[in-house]
Amino acid sequence: MSNQRTELEKLGEFGLIDHLTKDFVNKNNSTEFGIGDDAAVISISEEEAKLISTDMLIEGVHFNLMYMPLKHLGYKAVAVNLSDICAMNGTPEQITVSIAVSNRFPVEALEELYEGIKTACSIYNVDLIGGDTTSSLSGLSISITAIGSAKKKDITYRSGSKEGDLLVTTGDLGAAYMGLQILEREKAVYNENPNIQPDLDGHDYIIERQLKPEARIDILKYLKELDVKPSSMIDISDGLASEIMHLCKSSKVGCHVYDEKIPIDAKTSMTALEFNMDPSTCALNGGEDYELLFTVPQSEFEKIKGNPHMSIIGHMTNENDGIYFIDKGGSAIELKAQGWSHFE
Amino acid sequence: MSNQRTELEKLGEFGLIDHLTKDFVNKNNSTEFGIGDDAAVISISEEEAKLISTDMLIEGVHFNLMYMPLKHLGYKAVAVNLSDICAMNGTPEQITVSIAVSNRFPVEALEELYEGIKTACSIYNVDLIGGDTTSSLSGLSISITAIGSAKKKDITYRSGSKEGDLLVTTGDLGAAYMGLQILEREKAVYNENPNIQPDLDGHDYIIERQLKPEARIDILKYLKELDVKPSSMIDISDGLASEIMHLCKSSKVGCHVYDEKIPIDAKTSMTALEFNMDPSTCALNGGEDYELLFTVPQSEFEKIKGNPHMSIIGHMTNENDGIYFIDKGGSAIELKAQGWSHFE
Repeated sequence: MSNQRTELEKLGEFGLIDHLTKDFVNKNNSTEFGIGDDAAVISISEEEAKLISTDMLIEGVHFNLMYMPLKHLGYKAVAVNLSDICAMNGTPEQITVSIAVSNRFPVEALEELYEGIKTACSIYNVDLIGGDTTSSLSGLSISITAIGSAKKKDITYRSGSKEGDLLVTTGDLGAAYMGLQILEREKAVYNENPNIQPDLDGHDYIIERQLKPEARIDILKYLKELDVKPSSMIDISDGLASEIMHLCKSSKVGCHVYDEKIPIDAKTSMTALEFNMDPSTCALNGGEDYELLFTVPQSEFEKIKGNPHMSIIGHMTNENDGIYFIDKGGSAIELKAQGWSHFE
Repeated sequence: MSNQRTELEKLGEFGLIDHLTKDFVNKNNSTEFGIGDDAAVISISEEEAKLISTDMLIEGVHFNLMYMPLKHLGYKAVAVNLSDICAMNGTPEQITVSIAVSNRFPVEALEELYEGIKTACSIYNVDLIGGDTTSSLSGLSISITAIGSAKKKDITYRSGSKEGDLLVTTGDLGAAYMGLQILEREKAVYNENPNIQPDLDGHDYIIERQLKPEARIDILKYLKELDVKPSSMIDISDGLASEIMHLCKSSKVGCHVYDEKIPIDAKTSMTALEFNMDPSTCALNGGEDYELLFTVPQSEFEKIKGNPHMSIIGHMTNENDGIYFIDKGGSAIELKAQGWSHFE
């Protein structure tokens, strides 16, 4: 090792991946697409492919067992991986689950975790086909790999968006982040005084969005019914702003996204205001919504317009025009990604 | 959660996996084989399949950075995963690599790790197609998933062995374990007095077996040249005894394995004696050899006999006859798996 020391935070998560993998060259014909999208694409025939996506969840970084029941954690760990397969317009079919666990956990705790994993497998119709179980010195780590199927012509990459395309998000945004704020607040109250019962009343929706997100596999069905194939797609795991930047970078386009068009549930807004936060900022930078963000040609406007599951929130512009958030007063603010950066 | 508390060590690693996954039912036609072999098998056409295997390596449990250079660790992490694909008689083609790392590590350390990963990818002709990079509260965790290809008719399961089959191991056994003993001894000496230089002289071979094991992809080529398809196969990660038990359990056969036939390198034996250990015990229970253990019908005896890469070490018997180690004096000792059990 050289004597130089560069801190991880200097590069950030995405910069670090780019840096570490920049010299790798793909050699196998079956490797259709490697690093740089929600899932890798492995060719299995002229027309068909397998999709591979993997995620690692670390106790104390991605989840806190003080308010995250193990059953929910198991469910969420599966759902967020399947979300990546959905973001490629593919059908998830299998998962592997590896866990590292300290002997602080009894067998019964892992039964709870696997109960959640089993529920997710059942709801999303995926099979658990393997994994690894090992001990850790402290805490719980979960690593899941999801495998899906897709016709090559159906696969939606981040790179397919064109200038003029409409930008569409599913569902509503910012709820999972506000749910986390409520849970963190009640944890702090409990730590002060364990006799006070947590006050979660009226926050069911946003807490559920945090504890039990869903992979929007239903959206793929709706899109098929509408006969719409997105020109690009990504799932919203790190926050709307960060995902827009990914689409723009991969597709070499700019973007205008309109504050007034961003779908935010009333309960999210109310909670944000309670915390003196701007609801739009929560939607832009909060993360963990696991909604799908996609682009479609303007010619598809009539098919998307008014769909209760989808909101048109902006349009793609020329790359040189940059990426802008247009606030309710009409001012254009240049977007900077502020998604989760675990190293900061 | 119920109030009962069952310690993880009560079930052991394999018992725990069985227990946690016993109620999972496969629903997808593409899932040809799930949990219970070195890799899962996903059908991609009538004749072809993809193989999926995954492993998790935890600092302080699977490796010690005090004597494991990061470059070697990266190489080993890839090799041991590819070994699982080889054990199914498949060709590894892709890997995903996820790492969780604390900010104790600078970028330069991860560059070393990925240098080893890249070397392994280059030597084994596999592509790095994805992964996840996140922070951890302490230490380094690596989770790798390997993807391989195979013709369905070529796949070797653990379950295919028949009574009368010959039991064959590749290479020599116990070396990686004795290499670990040397490294642990020198670590203890160093901890006592950091001014004493480690004495690794004459132990190059066994230390390399510990720090830089190889996936025996070359064996698959030799077997093809000999026109031999093993009736069952597994890789030796937890020690010969444990792997024999897996083959016997899956194939519903018994086994006689002969002490005098087990290939042990002279340097392994010498080091074992230096440590007052029985070399055969190191081979049986040491682990991390990553050699291939397979069975062939007796009719293949002439093809295997005298092959410098392969040793016939026993034969499979009736299930009711049990699993026996025949020592050099001719006494039969019933084998009990004593492989690595991380929870004990």
